[in-house]
Amino acid sequence: MYPPPIQKLINLFSRFPTVGPRTAARFVFYLLQLPKKELEELLNSISDLRKEIKICLFCFNPFEPSFAKATAGKGELCKICSNPSRDKTLLCIVEKETDLFTLEKTKKYNGLYFILGGTISTFKKEDIKKLKTSELLERVKNPKKFGITDAQFKEIIIAINPTTEGESTALYLKRLLKPLSYGEPPQPIKITRLGQGLPVGAELEYADEETLGSALEGRK
Amino acid sequence: MYPPPIQKLINLFSRFPTVGPRTAARFVFYLLQLPKKELEELLNSISDLRKEIKICLFCFNPFEPSFAKATAGKGELCKICSNPSRDKTLLCIVEKETDLFTLEKTKKYNGLYFILGGTISTFKKEDIKKLKTSELLERVKNPKKFGITDAQFKEIIIAINPTTEGESTALYLKRLLKPLSYGEPPQPIKITRLGQGLPVGAELEYADEETLGSALEGRK
Amino acid sequence: MYPPPIQKLINLFSRFPTVGPRTAARFVFYLLQLPKKELEELLNSISDLRKEIKICLFCFNPFEPSFAKATAGKGELCKICSNPSRDKTLLCIVEKETDLFTLEKTKKYNGLYFILGGTISTFKKEDIKKLKTSELLERVKNPKKFGITDAQFKEIIIAINPTTEGESTALYLKRLLKPLSYGEPPQPIKITRLGQGLPVGAELEYADEETLGSALEGRK
Amino acid sequence: MYPPPIQKLINLFSRFPTVGPRTAARFVFYLLQLPKKELEELLNSISDLRKEIKICLFCFNPFEPSFAKATAGKGELCKICSNPSRDKTLLCIVEKETDLFTLEKTKKYNGLYFILGGTISTFKKEDIKKLKTSELLERVKNPKKFGITDAQFKEIIIAINPTTEGESTALYLKRLLKPLSYGEPPQPIKITRLGQGLPVGAELEYADEETLGSALEGRK
Repeated sequence: MYPPPIQKLINLFSRFPTVGPRTAARFVFYLLQLPKKELEELLNSISDLRKEIKICLFCFNPFEPSFAKATAGKGELCKICSNPSRDKTLLCIVEKETDLFTLEKTKKYNGLYFILGGTISTFKKEDIKKLKTSELLERVKNPKKFGITDAQFKEIIIAINPTTEGESTALYLKRLLKPLSYGEPPQPIKITRLGQGLPVGAELEYADEETLGSALEGRK
Repeated sequence: MYPPPIQKLINLFSRFPTVGPRTAARFVFYLLQLPKKELEELLNSISDLRKEIKICLFCFNPFEPSFAKATAGKGELCKICSNPSRDKTLLCIVEKETDLFTLEKTKKYNGLYFILGGTISTFKKEDIKKLKTSELLERVKNPKKFGITDAQFKEIIIAINPTTEGESTALYLKRLLKPLSYGEPPQPIKITRLGQGLPVGAELEYADEETLGSALEGRK
Repeated sequence: MYPPPIQKLINLFSRFPTVGPRTAARFVFYLLQLPKKELEELLNSISDLRKEIKICLFCFNPFEPSFAKATAGKGELCKICSNPSRDKTLLCIVEKETDLFTLEKTKKYNGLYFILGGTISTFKKEDIKKLKTSELLERVKNPKKFGITDAQFKEIIIAINPTTEGESTALYLKRLLKPLSYGEPPQPIKITRLGQGLPVGAELEYADEETLGSALEGRK
Repeated sequence: MYPPPIQKLINLFSRFPTVGPRTAARFVFYLLQLPKKELEELLNSISDLRKEIKICLFCFNPFEPSFAKATAGKGELCKICSNPSRDKTLLCIVEKETDLFTLEKTKKYNGLYFILGGTISTFKKEDIKKLKTSELLERVKNPKKFGITDAQFKEIIIAINPTTEGESTALYLKRLLKPLSYGEPPQPIKITRLGQGLPVGAELEYADEETLGSALEGRK
C-alpha cells in the first residue's frame, strides 16, 4: 500500500521493541516532516552511538569510554565496574540494560552487575545459546581476566523478572551457579533472588496466593 | 425515567460495593425475569443470612454458629478463634472480611485475626471513628474478656493494603499499638507489616523504586 | 471456605449479570453489616417489585400499572404503548430493557418498541426458542389483539447491537419479517437497522474498514 | 543516569509519536546490539527517505516519484492525484498521512485528498497557522495551478476524527469553505462530514446519546 521506501522503513521500525506496523508508519511520517537539521542530528546520534559507546568487558553494560577513562582510567570497564567503592563480593545478574539502570536508580545496591542478554522459556540448547551463560561462568570464576582485579563473589543475586520465562531462566542459572565456591577453604557462593511480596499500591484481594504467602513470610 | 419501584431498587443496588446505576438497572431487570421460585430463594437467603450468621465476638469475622458449636463448642467465637491449634501469639489485622478469607487461602498463616472494618486517608477523629480501633485495643489487652482464654500476643501483623490509604491506616495503627507489651517483665509486642517486593509475574522495568528497593533488601 | 449460608448467597449473587464470585462475596459482606432497617428496605423493594411492576402486554417493557392507569387508563399496556401521541407506524426491536431506556433517553425516537429478550449466535432451534420471535410476529400481524388499536407498522427498526451475536440475530429477524406487509393493496414493511459510522470521540486510524466504509457512505 | 550519547538519543527518540523515555531507552539498547549491517540498513533507509520520497504538490501525500513517473508521467503529483480514473469532483480533507492510507484501504472512496497537517482545539491564529488552510483554499479554487487539470470539486468531505479537537477543526473548515462555489452559474460546493453511528462491535448500552441519535437518524 505504502510506497516501497516508506514500507521498507516501516518494516525496519516494526522490529524495534514494542513497535507494531501502525506505530512504525507514524514514525516514518514523523521523519518525513522533520526539519532537515533535526533529521541529521538523529542520523548522527545513531551512527555516533557505536563509536562513542563501548560495551563493558566485564558486565556488558554500554558505556562511554572517554568519560569512564577520565574518572577511572580503565578504558575497557564501565563506570560501575571500574568504581573502586563498589562492593566486589556481590554480583547481580539482570536480563537487559534497562533493568540494570532501573536497579541503579533505587540506590539500594552497591555491587557489580552482569547483563545476561535475555531469558529462556525452555532448557533447549538452542534457547540457552541466546544467553551469555559461558561468559557469566568465566567472569564469576576469573574476574581478574576481565579487568576486575579485586573481586571475590560471595553472593550472586538473580534479578530476573518473576515471570514464567524469568522463573525458567532463574532455575537454569541456579543449577549452573550452584557448584561455584569462593575462598580457601572453599565456601559455596550464596545464590539469591529478589524478594517477592506485595508491590506498593497493591490490594490483598487481588494478589495471587504465592505473592501473598511470600508477603506473609517476608513480614517485618 | 424508570418507573418508581424500579428506580428505587436501582438506587438501593447502587449502594452495593462496585455497583453503578447502569449495573444496578441490569440487576433489577434480572430480578424481574427471574422465576418466582428462584426469587424466593434469593429473598430467603438474604433474610436468613442475619439469623444464621453471627459476627465473631473476638475478630468480627462472620460465621455460622451451629457449625462452629458442633466443632468447637463455643457459640460466640468463629471457627478460627475457637480452634485450639491456632497460634495465639500472633494477631493479624485486616481491613475487611474478604482479606481474611484471602489470607486463609494461602495456608501460610496460623494465628488469629482482627477485622478493622475500613481504612482512613486522614487522621481526623471523624474518619478514625469508622475503624474498630477501641475494639482492637480492648481485645489485644484483654483477649480473655472476649472468649480467647489462652492468647498472649507477641506479634501483631498489620495486613493492610500497601495503598496510600492503607499506609495512613498502618501508620495510625503502629502509633496506637506501639506502647503495648506482653509478659512479665513486659516485653514490647512486635508490630510488623506484610513484606514488600515483586509480585509473581512482575517486570523489574515497571516496578517502582520503593518496591524494587524492598525486593533487593528482601532477597533470599 | 466460606460458611454455607454465605457461600449459598455468593452463588446466588454470582448469577446476577456482570457479577463474579469475588464481587458476590463483597455483596454478602455488605449485607451483613447493613443496618437492619436498610436490609428490610432492600428485601421489601425486591419482593414488592413483582407486585408493583407489570410486564407490558405488547412490548414486554416492565411498568408500574397504577401510574400508567392514572395517565392512560389502559392497565395492561405500558406508558409508551398507551401513549396516543407515539407514532404507531414505527416498531423498534431491542434486545433488552436497558436498551429501550437508552434509546428513550436520546428523545430521537417516537414509535413503539418490542423487547426480544436476547440474542442468538447460531440459528439452532434451541437458541431461537430463547427469543420472543413468535410473540413478535403475532404482535406485528395483529397489534389490536394486544391492546394497540390504531397501529399499522410501516417500518421495523432492528436496534440490536452490531456485535457478532447481534448480526446473527438481525439476520434471523430480517428473514422472519421480510414476508410481512401492511395496507391494501399490501406493501412490504420496511426493515431497517441502526446506522453504522464513527461514534463520537473515535479516531479514523483505529476504526475498522467496515465502520469507515459505512461512515463514508453515510456522510452528510 | 545514562551516558550522554545514550541519553541524547533517548531524548531524540522521545520526540517520536507515542514514544516515552522508557521506550526510547529500549530503542537505544536495541540499536546498540543490532548487527552492523542492519544498523547501516536502517541509517540508509532513513537518509534515503528524503531523497526517494517526494511530497505531492496537490495533496501533500508522500510518494515515490520514479514509480509515479513510470505509471503516470507526472513527477510532481502522487499516484492518487495523477490517476486519471479518480473522481475529480470529490475532495476529502484528512488530518494526517495515515488517515489517508486508512481511507484508501476501505476501497470505498475514489476522489482526491488533501492532508491538512493537524487539528486545532481553539481558533487562535497561532493554532490555525499549524494547519495548511491557505494551501487548501488555493488548491480548491485553482487545482490546475497544482497540476490537477480536470478537477471541479462539487463536494468536500471533512474526514477529521469526531473528537473534541476534530470537531473544532471541522467547524473552522466549514466556515472557511462555505463561500466556495463551482460551475457557471455558480453552485455552492457541498461540505460533508463522515457519518456518525454505531461502529462494528458496539453495544447500544454504552453508546453516548449523540452517537445513538445519529444511528437512529441514519438507519437504513
